[in-house]
Amino acid sequence: MKKFNVGVIGLGNRGSWWVTEMLLELEYVNIVGLCDVYADRIEKIRDQMLEKGFTAPAVQTVQYRELIDAPQVDTVLIFSAWSNHVDAALYAMKAGKPVGMEVGGAYGLEQCWELVRTYQQTQTPFMLLENCCYGEYELMALNMAKRGALGEIVHCDGGYMHDLRDEVARGNETRHYRFNEYLTRNAENYPTHEIGPISKLLHINNGNRFESLVSVSSRSAGLHAYICAHEELKEKYGDLQFKQGDIVNTLIRCADGSTVAIALDTTLPRYYSRNFTVRGTKGMYDENTQSFFFDGEDHSQTEWDWSPEFGNRQRYKEKWQHPIWKHYYEVGVKEQGHGGMDFLVIDAFFEALDQNLPMPIDVYDAACWMAITALSAKSITLGSQPVEFPDFTEGKWQKPQPQPEWKYAF
Amino acid sequence: MKKFNVGVIGLGNRGSWWVTEMLLELEYVNIVGLCDVYADRIEKIRDQMLEKGFTAPAVQTVQYRELIDAPQVDTVLIFSAWSNHVDAALYAMKAGKPVGMEVGGAYGLEQCWELVRTYQQTQTPFMLLENCCYGEYELMALNMAKRGALGEIVHCDGGYMHDLRDEVARGNETRHYRFNEYLTRNAENYPTHEIGPISKLLHINNGNRFESLVSVSSRSAGLHAYICAHEELKEKYGDLQFKQGDIVNTLIRCADGSTVAIALDTTLPRYYSRNFTVRGTKGMYDENTQSFFFDGEDHSQTEWDWSPEFGNRQRYKEKWQHPIWKHYYEVGVKEQGHGGMDFLVIDAFFEALDQNLPMPIDVYDAACWMAITALSAKSITLGSQPVEFPDFTEGKWQKPQPQPEWKYAF
Repeated sequence: MKKFNVGVIGLGNRGSWWVTEMLLELEYVNIVGLCDVYADRIEKIRDQMLEKGFTAPAVQTVQYRELIDAPQVDTVLIFSAWSNHVDAALYAMKAGKPVGMEVGGAYGLEQCWELVRTYQQTQTPFMLLENCCYGEYELMALNMAKRGALGEIVHCDGGYMHDLRDEVARGNETRHYRFNEYLTRNAENYPTHEIGPISKLLHINNGNRFESLVSVSSRSAGLHAYICAHEELKEKYGDLQFKQGDIVNTLIRCADGSTVAIALDTTLPRYYSRNFTVRGTKGMYDENTQSFFFDGEDHSQTEWDWSPEFGNRQRYKEKWQHPIWKHYYEVGVKEQGHGGMDFLVIDAFFEALDQNLPMPIDVYDAACWMAITALSAKSITLGSQPVEFPDFTEGKWQKPQPQPEWKYAF
Repeated sequence: MKKFNVGVIGLGNRGSWWVTEMLLELEYVNIVGLCDVYADRIEKIRDQMLEKGFTAPAVQTVQYRELIDAPQVDTVLIFSAWSNHVDAALYAMKAGKPVGMEVGGAYGLEQCWELVRTYQQTQTPFMLLENCCYGEYELMALNMAKRGALGEIVHCDGGYMHDLRDEVARGNETRHYRFNEYLTRNAENYPTHEIGPISKLLHINNGNRFESLVSVSSRSAGLHAYICAHEELKEKYGDLQFKQGDIVNTLIRCADGSTVAIALDTTLPRYYSRNFTVRGTKGMYDENTQSFFFDGEDHSQTEWDWSPEFGNRQRYKEKWQHPIWKHYYEVGVKEQGHGGMDFLVIDAFFEALDQNLPMPIDVYDAACWMAITALSAKSITLGSQPVEFPDFTEGKWQKPQPQPEWKYAF
């Protein structure tokens, strides 16, 4: 693979991790530019690079436009606050510099349309770096679904179920954008981890599409209770009213009659889960019990007094492992970043660039997944009225195209 | 306890079980009347009673009115098809005969209002026999919630997740009403198993109320696929279009800002679950992993790479067992009917009657739980528009009343 001269925008928790733990390890990546609105973050990463024996990046700037415009940078990666993602991506596409963008939701539908229009005008490669599309069991279920083992897929569930109370409540101290996001809006603010893999399963934008959604939000109680339970937080933030509901449930109807239920669940105590669940006429996968369930197999779950075969997914690996993960285990890449997903998604981006292949998670995927945030906010504001998805493909979804024969295609 | 002379309406699967496996075992029950629209079912149960050494019931009739009117009958139990429940209950209340009614959904809101009005006019004791309100872990979570261990309750999930494809698809042969129900309507047709315990947790009708719901239905694919996979069914029913969607998700908003998500999930392969989930500001209970999760406890689930402590609920039993279940284990009643719930719900009904106590699951509970079926059908028909719950208490919910000090009160 050729070498890419990469400029990185956003060096908070996620961006720092990407640079120091992943990008510097990749032979085909030269980090030539660092950008963050906080100069000290740039310095910190630069110093870490120097310590590891790399040269200091030629471009160091608090202005993302300056980073993108710099002649040394040929590829842009965006790991910044959600609110900056689209602006930076649009600017990069217009500058003709291929762009990989971390996940987040859209603030309005016009942002999604701008992504689509700008890509159509510039044809600059764009990929949404949704790592969960490359999750091992997400891909295993996709593999089964493609090969018919689950029958017709009728419904999927997913969720971003991650106790972020400490991160959000201390966000003002740590400069984490979630603090203000949770203070000022109420939406399914992080839909892509679950909707990404589900969209690939349901052929969204390629034979199927999301038609409408409804969102219902609970009241906001978790952050306030958390803050009041910690004296140092209570003094400062005990009177704040967070707008973000603790649990936002969203139900989506698809053109083919299948449905999707997703949940944002980040400010009450719980274990981590993406609740990835696939329901077909022949079988199901359920992340919470880490088990598959097939029609006609001798499952203890078929008993009335069920005792689930917790974790039985291991036993299906040999037969149903997705080729991407067979490859991952075979080449023996060490497990890096969320159990390998981060390596796979970034490797897919650079390999697609190198081989001039269509991006596996393209601008249409990004637009329709990110739109959920804007649409859910609207539905909640309207008292849970159903709201329609725009068709960002403008009808092209009705003529499904075969995926290219390529390692990272879904 | 005094002896009750009971007339039973409905002797299908459930009614037969109730009579032969439970009611005949209860010292305070005399079965004096049997009714079913199919005479052979009456004969079968009568014969089983004779075999067991009981005398034949004085009243045997295919007309439920005749059974209720019979002077020998002082108490009525309704186990018939869903479509008969309310008519029979209204008739019994008007006849001044206390009535216990099995669960199901309402076909329209007027049915629910009729239940309420008839009770108000007659004051005849009425109880909805929702056994899951007496589930061991449902009550354990309720006990925790009442004693503050879960913090403020913000959201609950539930579901009737039970693979009924065989029962429904063969219902025409076995005279099971679900066959026609699934053929002719699309609704959350069985909401009470989950909404019952959740309502008790959220103080519905007693300080809180359901305000509105939205329902989204998937297409119907499971029954057709199941029928086509069985030759003998395919010949007869291969061309049928079932109207009932495989999965119906319903989201409910409550007056206090908490939310409830319930699912009907009965025609795709899966393990049994009621997905009973309680989410508070201090902890959660989750049926699918059979585990509690409390803030501040040393849980393996707090790890990013989570490994849930599957089944940890056992370890909370000693501290948090609900008094009803302590009683159940202490008196050593053998485990009967859905793990004890059936005994508890029927014992509660007769003990309330005997002691002239208010019914623990009353006509207002029944009306607002059963209304979900009618409201969900309307929401689905309207493209998932939100629909409002009537306030069957006509404002009384705003003045919460203390529960009577009594074994079976919630």
